[in-house]
Amino acid sequence: MKEIEFWFSIGSTYTYLSVARLPVLSREINVTFSWQPFSVRKIMQEMDNIPFPPTKKAKADYMWRDIERRAQRYGFSANVPAPYPLKEFDLANKIAVLGMQEGWCVDYVCATYRRWFQEGLEAGSEPNILDSLTEIGQDPKRVLKLVESDSIEKAYSDQTDMAREKGIFGSPTCIVDGELFWGDDRIEDAVWWLNSG
Amino acid sequence: MKEIEFWFSIGSTYTYLSVARLPVLSREINVTFSWQPFSVRKIMQEMDNIPFPPTKKAKADYMWRDIERRAQRYGFSANVPAPYPLKEFDLANKIAVLGMQEGWCVDYVCATYRRWFQEGLEAGSEPNILDSLTEIGQDPKRVLKLVESDSIEKAYSDQTDMAREKGIFGSPTCIVDGELFWGDDRIEDAVWWLNSG
Repeated sequence: MKEIEFWFSIGSTYTYLSVARLPVLSREINVTFSWQPFSVRKIMQEMDNIPFPPTKKAKADYMWRDIERRAQRYGFSANVPAPYPLKEFDLANKIAVLGMQEGWCVDYVCATYRRWFQEGLEAGSEPNILDSLTEIGQDPKRVLKLVESDSIEKAYSDQTDMAREKGIFGSPTCIVDGELFWGDDRIEDAVWWLNSG
Repeated sequence: MKEIEFWFSIGSTYTYLSVARLPVLSREINVTFSWQPFSVRKIMQEMDNIPFPPTKKAKADYMWRDIERRAQRYGFSANVPAPYPLKEFDLANKIAVLGMQEGWCVDYVCATYRRWFQEGLEAGSEPNILDSLTEIGQDPKRVLKLVESDSIEKAYSDQTDMAREKGIFGSPTCIVDGELFWGDDRIEDAVWWLNSG
């Protein structure tokens, strides 16, 4: 089965659109997406890339409306603006890193994004974490203890280093044969590239 | 016939993709695009939005590759990186403003972008201006004299004021019923919005 790397950070707004449609899309087109959490915040800070300074209010307003319309076009909803930015960005993503190691990353990311963008409950904070982990059958106490370990901190940092080395600067980014496709709106380009060999 | 406002600045890189495909798309889907030049540079400066600072090299490199691939997918070519940024941004756009008044705006914009993105000849400078105007049957001497007039300066400034009032912050932007669709990759969303009433 063909595979596309899907690099993402929980905390990115447009990533909601991809998270919400990728499981279905993957089955429809028979392509596996390899979900790879990293810290886009760290890479953006290194690039002096500030998502929404006050001078760019028009752009931020537009983004929420764009996400709302695109979700509608895809066939699901988006309750915007969602709480932003996340207070516990790193915690949200370190849980995803543990999930990647243990095999429940996709379920967690889908559950936490749904709560964030449909119920207005911030990812990385309570009650989102507790509810999302419980929903996917993971013990929140065990998970929250494990994600504080040095090994998860290091795995998270390693993921971010790998992302940087690949040239990634935004979330989500798909990679096919070393080609980067940035943004939810480039997933179809990544699939096209994969299929055109 | 249905109509979509198409706001653009010559000087924007992604606008090349729209300029190159819009005339054909317009006929195919039977939608008229009303081409509206304005200064996206002025609006971006007001928002402290600097397109490609040195810290964002990865992002700039990505943009050129993305434009090249998207052009390929659309079925035409892009010789990237094209000369950037334009030295004579305002002149390039003031000619478009005159063209809008006289009815040859689309022909000029297509001709000047083709030279810029296919032949590597910068828009707004020579020999691009001379060749583009000659190709579309306009006398360069007459045009270049007219675009220095106060009335064109004012019309250009008025267009930019209108764009700002509409909430535009980037090029290209389509508008349908007051809804903004920013980017070449949102033209299909604008058409979808138009058709879904």
